[in-house]
Amino acid sequence: MRVRLSDVAERAGVHPATASRALNERTRSKISAETVQRVLKAAKDLDYSPNGAAQNLAMNRSSTIGVIIGDLTVPLFPPLLLGVDNVTSAAGYTALIVNTDNDIERERARISNIAGRGVDGLVVATATIGDGSDPGYYTRIAPTVFVVRAPADPTAPTVLSDDSVGVHAAVEHLFALGHRRIAHVGGPSNISTSIARLRAYREALFERGLELDPDLCVAVDKLTPSDGAEAFGRLIDSGADFTAVLAFNDSVAFGCYKALRSRGLTCPGDVSVIGFNDMTGADLVAPPLTTVNVNHYAMGAEAARMLLAMLRSPDTQPAHSARMPVELVLRESTAPPAR
Amino acid sequence: MRVRLSDVAERAGVHPATASRALNERTRSKISAETVQRVLKAAKDLDYSPNGAAQNLAMNRSSTIGVIIGDLTVPLFPPLLLGVDNVTSAAGYTALIVNTDNDIERERARISNIAGRGVDGLVVATATIGDGSDPGYYTRIAPTVFVVRAPADPTAPTVLSDDSVGVHAAVEHLFALGHRRIAHVGGPSNISTSIARLRAYREALFERGLELDPDLCVAVDKLTPSDGAEAFGRLIDSGADFTAVLAFNDSVAFGCYKALRSRGLTCPGDVSVIGFNDMTGADLVAPPLTTVNVNHYAMGAEAARMLLAMLRSPDTQPAHSARMPVELVLRESTAPPAR
Repeated sequence: MRVRLSDVAERAGVHPATASRALNERTRSKISAETVQRVLKAAKDLDYSPNGAAQNLAMNRSSTIGVIIGDLTVPLFPPLLLGVDNVTSAAGYTALIVNTDNDIERERARISNIAGRGVDGLVVATATIGDGSDPGYYTRIAPTVFVVRAPADPTAPTVLSDDSVGVHAAVEHLFALGHRRIAHVGGPSNISTSIARLRAYREALFERGLELDPDLCVAVDKLTPSDGAEAFGRLIDSGADFTAVLAFNDSVAFGCYKALRSRGLTCPGDVSVIGFNDMTGADLVAPPLTTVNVNHYAMGAEAARMLLAMLRSPDTQPAHSARMPVELVLRESTAPPAR
Repeated sequence: MRVRLSDVAERAGVHPATASRALNERTRSKISAETVQRVLKAAKDLDYSPNGAAQNLAMNRSSTIGVIIGDLTVPLFPPLLLGVDNVTSAAGYTALIVNTDNDIERERARISNIAGRGVDGLVVATATIGDGSDPGYYTRIAPTVFVVRAPADPTAPTVLSDDSVGVHAAVEHLFALGHRRIAHVGGPSNISTSIARLRAYREALFERGLELDPDLCVAVDKLTPSDGAEAFGRLIDSGADFTAVLAFNDSVAFGCYKALRSRGLTCPGDVSVIGFNDMTGADLVAPPLTTVNVNHYAMGAEAARMLLAMLRSPDTQPAHSARMPVELVLRESTAPPAR
């Protein structure tokens, strides 16, 4: 049964109107400190939850941050959410996480729900290029920081990993080992990260006097091991000539492992494999995966700090977008080419 | 800038009061269908988000399900959340996910936030035994289904995996391979699953004429590979005699791998290892992990269906609690004992 204001008043031994004033930060000063303490204690003892819808309406604030995620089962998101959550929580906000299943209709409906109930800011990890990429959609609802994926508007506050540095380091490592035919299994074409990593791959090849060979490039629709296995399997079966592969991320790299294994090929004996993210388990797979470490917890925390700064000073220019450092982690999935 | 009702009315060419009636499901029938369509289209074109706080207050509903999770980075939760999300979404609800960081104060503050804003039901995955386990706390806020972890009240609607069947199958498999000294790395003592799996382990040994040896049992505080490595490392270093280990879950089993490797021991050569959950990557580690498959997506979906049934018929008895089937998956981390 719902605890009512009158229950709190009765327990504290005051009139309900007094209890109401004691519970409201704006009117609290009109009541004696001793009474306020008594009412607050009674409210706590009873797990009293004020009718927030009415209260928010009156106070025009919600202390709520909406965090919009496309697919929680993508392993980078849980640590990222934890970073957002810990930083916003320390500042007194509740983070409400919305999973959109990468469905724009579902996303819009859900954002409408939380917007209608009042939300102070948004952290958006679902930006896409092209359809539905209007960053203004989010900022009309509340101050917004984009994270992981860049929106179409390059001036929107955004926290990304330094993908270019990561891809250059990966290509340099393979090049130093002696690889010259380096395949690429890219990400979905409608997210900014796919474009950024493919571009960096081409640039890194170019800097070393190599050219991107379209016959060595495939892409996945979904960032799963099974889609990675399917795409890289097609590349192997095409008879294309390569000795290493740069996978869009670790999940895709695990798919490359599967495709190699199912064809009787070995890593790194036949093909060296590099991932991206350094997700949990990347050091436990066989062989342990050489990959680009991205600190997604730090990215979430940085996005949250940026958003809190915007909320504190709504009229100042948003912070510059942040590029979080990355680091190539050498393990056992890369070796000199056998041929 | 926030889009107002008057903007929608202007775009649709109607009086604001007409727009308001057209947007409200309860009063819509008083307006011509053609006008309703025009207003809805205008609202959609403008991304109009009705003031939900006011609307919810008037309609006394929020179409919102709160999902309370202790630690999103535990790999079973993302698929479970997806199951809750897909089922509640199909019924027109928005799932708001709250991460509590396994901190009871944070949990209470956050549940107060969503409760204050109106929530129709709760799916709670943070039940603990002992302190803070009062299931009444949740049910006073909204109809509640517990999932993954059982609350203190055994009559509360709860969706669990059939851990006893899973543990019995694991012990039977090891026994059939010839193992008689089977160690156990258990979970934190304050969650129901730890108790249930330890009890099933003891029963399974007993049924085979073996007794639980306390010297072969350790437990972790956190369900991470590093805590698993630390706990199992202590067991190895104690000089206890065993040929196999049953780990609380796959993360802990990965920790057992690490502890073995760092001491120059092999799996399954020196010690067979069995996990629980069959998380993503369990088939990719070296050696691929024999484990008990739990379908956490199905558990989330079942919890959501149970909650929706309670919301549709608030006066009927809640459904019996569900135990979801599990299945032992044989891979390469188990083999006959060498000695």
